[in-house]
Amino acid sequence: MKGLFITLEGGEGAGKSTQVERLSRRLRDSGRETVVTREPGGSPRAELIRASILAGEGKAFGPLAEALMFSAARADHVETVIRPALARGAVVLCDRFADSTRAYQGSRGEVDEATLRALERVVVGATKPNLTLILDLPADIGLTRAAARRREGRQAADRFEQEDIDFHARLREAFLAIARAEPERCAVIDARGEPGQVADEIWRTIRERVGVKTLLTRP
Amino acid sequence: MKGLFITLEGGEGAGKSTQVERLSRRLRDSGRETVVTREPGGSPRAELIRASILAGEGKAFGPLAEALMFSAARADHVETVIRPALARGAVVLCDRFADSTRAYQGSRGEVDEATLRALERVVVGATKPNLTLILDLPADIGLTRAAARRREGRQAADRFEQEDIDFHARLREAFLAIARAEPERCAVIDARGEPGQVADEIWRTIRERVGVKTLLTRP
Ligand SMILES: Nc1ncnc2c1ncn2[C@@H]1O[C@H](COP(=O)(O)OP(=O)(O)O)[C@@H](O)[C@H]1O
Ligand SMILES: Nc1ncnc2c1ncn2[C@@H]1O[C@H](COP(=O)(O)OP(=O)(O)O)[C@@H](O)[C@H]1O
Ligand SMILES: [Mg+2]
Ligand SMILES: [Mg+2]
Repeated sequence: MKGLFITLEGGEGAGKSTQVERLSRRLRDSGRETVVTREPGGSPRAELIRASILAGEGKAFGPLAEALMFSAARADHVETVIRPALARGAVVLCDRFADSTRAYQGSRGEVDEATLRALERVVVGATKPNLTLILDLPADIGLTRAAARRREGRQAADRFEQEDIDFHARLREAFLAIARAEPERCAVIDARGEPGQVADEIWRTIRERVGVKTLLTRP
Repeated sequence: MKGLFITLEGGEGAGKSTQVERLSRRLRDSGRETVVTREPGGSPRAELIRASILAGEGKAFGPLAEALMFSAARADHVETVIRPALARGAVVLCDRFADSTRAYQGSRGEVDEATLRALERVVVGATKPNLTLILDLPADIGLTRAAARRREGRQAADRFEQEDIDFHARLREAFLAIARAEPERCAVIDARGEPGQVADEIWRTIRERVGVKTLLTRP
């Protein structure tokens, strides 16, 4: 693979979409082909599969069948979007990827860890991210930001249910645990600052981890 | 699991559907609840997934995404049909199951063995068949029977393309290799005789392997 595969992970409202936008602009300004994509979805067939799961006429899929359908969607996304772009030498920025499955599905506990690992191995295989940026934020701040985005600032933080906070606190822990388990691949980014500050930390991290030459040279 | 899970495998025209019918009649006559099902498909959602794969608007799924979709269909079939029946204590007769995936997908070679094994482990898991009857037949006889069924006897054996014969000869070998690798679970049935003869051999095999008491007693 000549390209560079960077994923952004983290809870709701951590700033993933905001930072993917900024980062892609910076990379494109440097003359590097940059493909922005996201999960779930990311390819037309992946979107179709997703829609057919969510449509749920009548009874929902069981958790295992659902995990397999999402895996099929990811396999299509990797095969039709991510791998071809990497093969061309592009930088691929993906807003959520396999670590979100680990964190969310893992936290729901409906499908056992070993199965989720086996599926990730099968689907992601050789297309592991070169770098994963984990945008880290206390759960309440992330939820406040997400609510502000959703309701244009009309909802106060204290309106959140405590169970939302607890769930997002567990998610945050899950992402941090992934970072500890795979420090070579993952970098934890403090996402509490202003967007510009966070963008600078991300840029610094990428330069450190990847090297300026690899980052900015067309392959 | 109180029930008994028996799968029938083998190439086209080996007599699987014919024997599933006869066997289920014999079991029901003995007063044992018997659920007949088949793959691919077997449950409403599995059929939907199958249809959406085969519909193939535009480009087809890649082989890995397709294998994952079929796995999702199988997971649903196992979860909604097979496991509940076994939990009730029924005999479940399944016309084709995981070994057909191994033999057909394996022979196509588009998805590597290790991946297919990982998917089978994930999906079939604890719901492995107690007994798998592999109906064994020379490829040309099977194709002749299947053609006779399809075209009401108007097509001669020599009309078959040699590549059909070669492919089915490889399939036969693949099924026999599975039987050699898992002799505890699999029994090879000579499928060349008359339907009644084959049915008797199947009945004998089941009684030997499972025991009359287990077979015929309501749980
Ligand atoms: N660093 C930041 N500080 C304050 N607000 C932010 C910051 N980054 C993003 N936001 C705002 O928070 C909301 C969620 O950001 P978004 O990038 O959509 O997060 P995510 O994609 O991780 O859910 C948006 O309204 C966005 O404008
Ligand atoms: N033992 C047998 N001898 C001759 N013909 C058979 C025998 N078993 C089945 N057939 C016929 O061969 C055709 C294929 O049988 P079928 O049970 O549908 O096979 P499968 O389900 O394995 O493809 C049918 O027309 C069936 O009536
Ligand atoms: Mg977002
Ligand atoms: Mg049949």
